[in-house]
Amino acid sequence: MSQPISAYATEKRFRPKRAPERASYDKALVHAILDEALMAHVAYTDEAGCPHVLPMYFVRDGESLLLHGSAKMGQAKAARRGAAFCVNVTLLDGLVLARSGFHHSVNYRSVTVHGVPEILEGAEKTRALDLTVERLAKGRAAEVRAANAKEFKATLVLRLKLEQVAAKTRTGGVNDEPEDMELPVWAGVIPLHLAVGAPIADEQCAPGAAAPSLALTGPQSER
Amino acid sequence: MSQPISAYATEKRFRPKRAPERASYDKALVHAILDEALMAHVAYTDEAGCPHVLPMYFVRDGESLLLHGSAKMGQAKAARRGAAFCVNVTLLDGLVLARSGFHHSVNYRSVTVHGVPEILEGAEKTRALDLTVERLAKGRAAEVRAANAKEFKATLVLRLKLEQVAAKTRTGGVNDEPEDMELPVWAGVIPLHLAVGAPIADEQCAPGAAAPSLALTGPQSER
Repeated sequence: MSQPISAYATEKRFRPKRAPERASYDKALVHAILDEALMAHVAYTDEAGCPHVLPMYFVRDGESLLLHGSAKMGQAKAARRGAAFCVNVTLLDGLVLARSGFHHSVNYRSVTVHGVPEILEGAEKTRALDLTVERLAKGRAAEVRAANAKEFKATLVLRLKLEQVAAKTRTGGVNDEPEDMELPVWAGVIPLHLAVGAPIADEQCAPGAAAPSLALTGPQSER
Repeated sequence: MSQPISAYATEKRFRPKRAPERASYDKALVHAILDEALMAHVAYTDEAGCPHVLPMYFVRDGESLLLHGSAKMGQAKAARRGAAFCVNVTLLDGLVLARSGFHHSVNYRSVTVHGVPEILEGAEKTRALDLTVERLAKGRAAEVRAANAKEFKATLVLRLKLEQVAAKTRTGGVNDEPEDMELPVWAGVIPLHLAVGAPIADEQCAPGAAAPSLALTGPQSER
């Protein structure tokens, strides 16, 4: 398969070995998955060699992921000593119910990024925190109170460059074996998606303050 | 805080350090989160010391997680050499929009499990594969074709005991600072949930085969 022009030059060791036909290094696909997802799973290895993985909220900024959390979380300590990270972002799109147990599957769109993140400080950190809020609703960063010195210090912002990147996706219907097609069992796909419910305003919400128009590209509104 | 009677005796190194008031070791809570979620993020460290994390479908079986994937995935190789794993399962319940950037948050229910998984074989593996299908729809394991020898070999099933376990949750509304309450910005919670769409039957689906009644406890039906 010829590579699209705008593709990541991911090293072989960070390319999926299993089902490589489902892998992609296309930047546009990677960006779309990252921009739709709200949560990244962030893994590192501690100094005793033990793996850890926790969810973190994030935003894509061009060719970087900006990950944001508490300055006290394990990821902060690992980043300070220059540890390697692995980040996975997965959107679950459906359950695939096949005629054999083996061909049961899930439809998904996933991105995995490897690298050593930088800890952002100063103006870069301020900008990253603004982008994190802006991701929810455009204009909101200017409306809310900015972080004071204590809050700024208590917040961790990591920048992980999109260099060692692989997407992996499964889409479409059931892939059953020809000899199973006559089995009298239902086969097909159960679609799944993240849904947004009606906003619940805080009881002391300012009179006349309208719920923001969410900038989310992923979850489907049920309002 | 007194511990509930039925709680995990998780070692201190596997207990969350940050926001311990949001942590819980209650077995009933852990089970409920695991039974609702459809995807686990499974991390391990490879022999070069590099962390990896990928999503895997799973089912809880009493006090174990049964994780299932391809026998060719990195998790399989790591399990064969007895590597330590970390598994995180997170349900995203809402976006918390506060009056300050700092107090923006997410509502979630999360479980993290540490341990060295066993690779299941033989009758235990067969049972685990049946439970994996039964999780979707009761009775389905008997309706579909069971794995043949080649498929059985190509499938990895890991059992990770629920011993070093911690839940972490955030629920409820905005926690703003008193001095921010008069800011003229909307504050509140945007609920999120996984939604199930209408089943899409395979074109060659057996006539009269009804879509299964899903055994899922989590996603909310939109049918």
